[in-house]
Amino acid sequence: MANGNPGSGLQLRSLITSAGELEVSLAKVDIPDPAPDEVLVRVEASPINPSDLGLLLGAADLSTAKAADGPRLTAKVPQQFMRAMAGRLDQSMPVGNEGAGTVVAAGSDAAAQALLGKLVAGIGGAMYAQYRTLKAADVLPLPPGATAADGASCFVNPLTALGMVATMRAEGHKALVHTAAASNLGQMLQKICLKDGVPLVNIVRSPEQAKILTDIGATHVLDSTAPDFVARLTDALDETGATLGFDAIGGGKLAGQILGAMEAALNRKAGAYSRYGSATHKQVYIYGGLDTGPTELVRSFGMSWGLGGWLLTYFLMKIPPAEAQKLRQRVADELKTTFASHYTAEIGLAEALDPKVAAAYNRKTTGEKYLINPTKGLA
Amino acid sequence: MANGNPGSGLQLRSLITSAGELEVSLAKVDIPDPAPDEVLVRVEASPINPSDLGLLLGAADLSTAKAADGPRLTAKVPQQFMRAMAGRLDQSMPVGNEGAGTVVAAGSDAAAQALLGKLVAGIGGAMYAQYRTLKAADVLPLPPGATAADGASCFVNPLTALGMVATMRAEGHKALVHTAAASNLGQMLQKICLKDGVPLVNIVRSPEQAKILTDIGATHVLDSTAPDFVARLTDALDETGATLGFDAIGGGKLAGQILGAMEAALNRKAGAYSRYGSATHKQVYIYGGLDTGPTELVRSFGMSWGLGGWLLTYFLMKIPPAEAQKLRQRVADELKTTFASHYTAEIGLAEALDPKVAAAYNRKTTGEKYLINPTKGLA
Repeated sequence: MANGNPGSGLQLRSLITSAGELEVSLAKVDIPDPAPDEVLVRVEASPINPSDLGLLLGAADLSTAKAADGPRLTAKVPQQFMRAMAGRLDQSMPVGNEGAGTVVAAGSDAAAQALLGKLVAGIGGAMYAQYRTLKAADVLPLPPGATAADGASCFVNPLTALGMVATMRAEGHKALVHTAAASNLGQMLQKICLKDGVPLVNIVRSPEQAKILTDIGATHVLDSTAPDFVARLTDALDETGATLGFDAIGGGKLAGQILGAMEAALNRKAGAYSRYGSATHKQVYIYGGLDTGPTELVRSFGMSWGLGGWLLTYFLMKIPPAEAQKLRQRVADELKTTFASHYTAEIGLAEALDPKVAAAYNRKTTGEKYLINPTKGLA
Repeated sequence: MANGNPGSGLQLRSLITSAGELEVSLAKVDIPDPAPDEVLVRVEASPINPSDLGLLLGAADLSTAKAADGPRLTAKVPQQFMRAMAGRLDQSMPVGNEGAGTVVAAGSDAAAQALLGKLVAGIGGAMYAQYRTLKAADVLPLPPGATAADGASCFVNPLTALGMVATMRAEGHKALVHTAAASNLGQMLQKICLKDGVPLVNIVRSPEQAKILTDIGATHVLDSTAPDFVARLTDALDETGATLGFDAIGGGKLAGQILGAMEAALNRKAGAYSRYGSATHKQVYIYGGLDTGPTELVRSFGMSWGLGGWLLTYFLMKIPPAEAQKLRQRVADELKTTFASHYTAEIGLAEALDPKVAAAYNRKTTGEKYLINPTKGLA
């Protein structure tokens, strides 16, 4: 019987104490043999996504980070953020949304056994660990030729980008706006839109970011720091007819500016004056929080508008399972093209606890992305 | 043949010139005989709703208002608001959403003829006039004993209040929050909620406003100027389970505070910690703009939330005609109870152009409401 279960393994843990201290550590955890419908995956690659950082570092101030024995990383959580942390205080939490690795043990079900020795991708938390038990039905076998690094980011970014286009279709819009558009996710969205013929208006914050997108074929790329930004945005919205935006930034005026420019573009084509503005529904979804400050809306967009939160998990729960499976299959089929991810650094579990390394991956710089390889740097 | 068509009549008009001047005047307009499916109504009562003031006075600064011959009222529109007026410049526009009066002429259709001499209510703009032609199918015959003043506000406030409760049911919520809750509309909403057993959390801005609501049986009335407002709001939301709010104010922090308090109330009952907040959808609709300043959202309410515009017209377009008819019938049935309106002043068409009177009805003071009676003060 092929059982590669080592019996125990290291798992990264994040804890915030009621005394206001963050503590990131490696815990040695027992690994039970997989149930009949489960597989045990040796994790070989797991990305650090912005959505992981919230749980990993909480609201801690990394300028106070220190290394301690264990190894451990500790840092102070400023008092004003402790209320937001109330739900997780004094609970040691595993981290890591997604990743890929080799199936080293499998339950007795045929579907589980068929995966033994295969390279698979998975999602579900606790992937910053040497081993992770998953349902056989939930893993995605990687296509031939793909490495664990190729498959590490199979879920969050690809499905989020596909989810944006699916939401656009489901809610009756015909073109999209996207902010922080030069991100890994933004590049995937641009590639999907080019392939599917969906007009996309990209908003970035520097000429360098703009170049990343024009290099892969983007036609509408606007720099929000340019003095004529709102006028050019209105032109692009008029041209594309985009009435749905996805905003990764959240704070500040941008979401409201997008709604206002959508309204101005619609009014260029309007007939009779209506004091309630255009009757066409304009929508922006905030799906990230690069700016955690307040969102400010100057309500210059009539009465037919919406702003809201958007989360991949909720989206996947809402659509039929067969549709979700179709999206996952598309990710596997286009893993080396549309959904290719690039990493600027690969680190081991222990390195993730180094204050200098933590400061680097916490910067969320466009074009920089860290990959945790739990097989690296451990005896 | 009973034809009470006088052939012409006065109609109030609002004009904003590209030179930045508001001009409100009375125009003498021709009145054609009604088509077979139409009736001609002699308007006897038409309220000045906040939703009328936007069209009537635009963005004009009433401290610059002057009376002129005609009669006319003129006032300056500050330069910074002229962009928002672009769609209506140099167009003379009739005003007045709704009103009631007597059918003095009717088309040849039996349904129109049946209304002759009856007191009816109508909606559709241009009600600040001596006469208004309407489709027979669109008017609401008033119940016996009701006066034109009783029926003047049959549509906007009653249907908006009923629309809020209908929206709550359609979107799967079980209780409501309402701001500026001591308004005429807010009192109607409270009466509906008491009758229908819907928990309602009222938010007001003074103890006097609170008393208006407790006097009609409200149990949850919060003063947003109180130092413990957010804590008490959270308690009320916890108790009622309200996850839908309607906000008449729009600007400032209140809409965001409501979403934040909904989240805090939900988290009191939450199980395991989720970094994305409660999965329960929290929604606030902005349906008015008592504060036209920016809306500020401190996003402390997870990822499952929405903020949007809400307009009676769009709501009525979305629901089946039979359902809309049921709502209208309920208004007629409960005209003297649930949907009773009180007016603090009745003015004629010419008085509406007096700068002092205009300043008074433009104050939008809670408990004050003006009624235009076009039969008053004209030879």
